[in-house]
Amino acid sequence: MNTVAMLNGQFVDINQPLIHIEDRGYQFGDGVYEVVPVMDGRMAGFEYHMERLDRSLRELKIPAVYTHEDFYEFFVAMIEKGEIYDGNIYLQITRGVSQRQHQFPEQTVPVMTMVGRQRSYEKINQQYIGGVTLLSMPDIRWHRCDIKTINLLPNALAKQKALESGFDDALFYREESGNITECSSSNFYAVKNGVVWTHPDGELILPGCTKRIIIHDLCGKIDVPVVEKAFNLDFAKTADETFMSAASYCGMPVVKIDKTPIGTGKPGPVAQKIQAEFKKYLSAQKIVFAPK
Amino acid sequence: MNTVAMLNGQFVDINQPLIHIEDRGYQFGDGVYEVVPVMDGRMAGFEYHMERLDRSLRELKIPAVYTHEDFYEFFVAMIEKGEIYDGNIYLQITRGVSQRQHQFPEQTVPVMTMVGRQRSYEKINQQYIGGVTLLSMPDIRWHRCDIKTINLLPNALAKQKALESGFDDALFYREESGNITECSSSNFYAVKNGVVWTHPDGELILPGCTKRIIIHDLCGKIDVPVVEKAFNLDFAKTADETFMSAASYCGMPVVKIDKTPIGTGKPGPVAQKIQAEFKKYLSAQKIVFAPK
Repeated sequence: MNTVAMLNGQFVDINQPLIHIEDRGYQFGDGVYEVVPVMDGRMAGFEYHMERLDRSLRELKIPAVYTHEDFYEFFVAMIEKGEIYDGNIYLQITRGVSQRQHQFPEQTVPVMTMVGRQRSYEKINQQYIGGVTLLSMPDIRWHRCDIKTINLLPNALAKQKALESGFDDALFYREESGNITECSSSNFYAVKNGVVWTHPDGELILPGCTKRIIIHDLCGKIDVPVVEKAFNLDFAKTADETFMSAASYCGMPVVKIDKTPIGTGKPGPVAQKIQAEFKKYLSAQKIVFAPK
Repeated sequence: MNTVAMLNGQFVDINQPLIHIEDRGYQFGDGVYEVVPVMDGRMAGFEYHMERLDRSLRELKIPAVYTHEDFYEFFVAMIEKGEIYDGNIYLQITRGVSQRQHQFPEQTVPVMTMVGRQRSYEKINQQYIGGVTLLSMPDIRWHRCDIKTINLLPNALAKQKALESGFDDALFYREESGNITECSSSNFYAVKNGVVWTHPDGELILPGCTKRIIIHDLCGKIDVPVVEKAFNLDFAKTADETFMSAASYCGMPVVKIDKTPIGTGKPGPVAQKIQAEFKKYLSAQKIVFAPK
């Protein structure tokens, strides 16, 4: 399997050390990232990812030193070099290297790294064909989850805890309100009486690009209304069906939360319709890589 | 000025790239750190720092691959090579390199980096001779601030905001309780009627090593009682005096919070007594470096 990598727009060997000890990404988690999926040789939601990246950089006041056109060129070059028909491209930008101190350095030279890998979505879909299970736990993250930063330790710890407990992922709820926010790296949805509910964008969740695709591009087509409104664990556990979305999957059925099977305990019809609609959406995207 | 650095216990050139793109410290902030001050050729609270490091590693389930004796050897070697009579040694341990995924890798090979620099504490003390000013702001950090992780973006953003607003640092309070927790990288104290108040250890603050020195080693000597009890902003603003502590300073007077001068608006007597007592405490520590 090819792994391809770039440092500041130049191809590099990922097996070599490339980052300085005092990169603020390494000492403060002072950086942002995006993961863009490549499926059937197409990128899903590239512009959505770029818009969110812009916003993340702006929120952290990290200077943007590349245009969307630059990024597009880097992404296509990575995909071609890595022969990535199915896979993803990870992109990270940090505030760069400076002598360690909490405040921003006087001059910032951002450091951009990219990693591209092949990945079989067919395999993932097969693995989770019966849907996934979630372990609910308090959302103890900071209050700016809307910025896609590399301060991801709480998410990593939650995912690990869920796996160690025999679940596929964590389902976060805020203790102060009881509201479900999202999963460790996915947005979460509950279907009740034909309506899809999901937490509204804001400081407590990541505004998912796939969430955006679902709401803006898919749900209208399958004639399912969406409300962006918070709900609690009881609501989710008594929903007709639940599902989640992330860059790697759109409409992944969630069939169990804690010990409670959801609905029939099997993948629900809305999630399956969304999956089917996503395939159509994807096939309408521009082909960036076709195997010879 | 000498800057010295180590990677996994070996001296390295800090100007060279040494870290892999997929070090989990770089992509998840999945690591912990300590900063040990060197003052007058002595390390202050070395054992306290090592105990806290052990705890941080344990909490994150990062395997400990060095003993306190190993660390002591590394620290002394760094101090000698860097001729650090006054300065500090930064130590970081991450969960190491692995293909990016939220859950822990199956095998973990931690990556340890160290950076040592000279630093004039005399200069810092001169700079802040009249005390420091704090800007209060909501503490929006996650609920495991007791672990000294490199997920430090909220702290960095708060420090930056305080500086941009003309203050020296941020003073965090939890919106849910109104309680003051700590500063962006210091513990905070208020003196009222001869008693020192400070937030109790727990998941909302870092258990400061210098805090521990103040409570366990200094306050008894100057006959000042300490209560570890939370208090709010009003309490602090109407205190007789306030101060803070971190690895780089012990008993730094806080003379203004927001627009409110504290007490006389000048460094208070308890902070000054603690400073003096800290000097005695320090001079009783073992000399690890003496200039020729």
